[in-house]
Amino acid sequence: MTEGIHRSNEPAEVPGELREARATIDNIDAALVHLLAERFRCTKKVGVIKAHLNLPPSDPGREERQVARLRALAEEAGLDPVFAEKFLKFIVEEVIRHHEDIAGTMAEDGAQQAVPGAVGPRA
Amino acid sequence: MTEGIHRSNEPAEVPGELREARATIDNIDAALVHLLAERFRCTKKVGVIKAHLNLPPSDPGREERQVARLRALAEEAGLDPVFAEKFLKFIVEEVIRHHEDIAGTMAEDGAQQAVPGAVGPRA
Repeated sequence: MTEGIHRSNEPAEVPGELREARATIDNIDAALVHLLAERFRCTKKVGVIKAHLNLPPSDPGREERQVARLRALAEEAGLDPVFAEKFLKFIVEEVIRHHEDIAGTMAEDGAQQAVPGAVGPRA
Repeated sequence: MTEGIHRSNEPAEVPGELREARATIDNIDAALVHLLAERFRCTKKVGVIKAHLNLPPSDPGREERQVARLRALAEEAGLDPVFAEKFLKFIVEEVIRHHEDIAGTMAEDGAQQAVPGAVGPRA
């Protein structure tokens, strides 16, 4: 079934020109999925660092710098900067969800090691 | 100002470990923006092809195949397949918006060339 994952598997009636463009889109999507996987591996590490340092999951100053940078990069690349900003917000929502999970798990671990009933250091 | 675009420009008080992880995230984001720009260049071509061939902007069969493939790729890459599916839907919404714009522009161009008041071939 590996072939099915890597090929566009388009029905025979799809015109050649459309099939060609879709093959490129499918390759780009595979690259996007792998980059996103790596990005979340990295932001999960950030979540652990933040929880250890008692930093909040969300960081509005950092997000503001990211938005400005991505909008500028988008304009250079010919991507709608409004879409680039929406895209970053979409990703950051998922990251914050992961960070809250990490902080929650670490607080639970802390509570288990502490006196029963006591509030853990990161709870 | 080019340096400001390519560097993470983090405040001095950000711990080194966090600064390092953020530099990687910023590089991944630059790659994502450029891949997205290229993906939309490609889907805009698809929009023109579809409008010429009188195909509808949305193609549920294609989208179903894309979802199945991206979920499988996400699982291989260690990315949450539910997120991968949400991501594709997020991108496809933007693509459909572009395709509707293209179809609209082409219908307008057609109407301008036809008898005033007549309905164009792709209207």
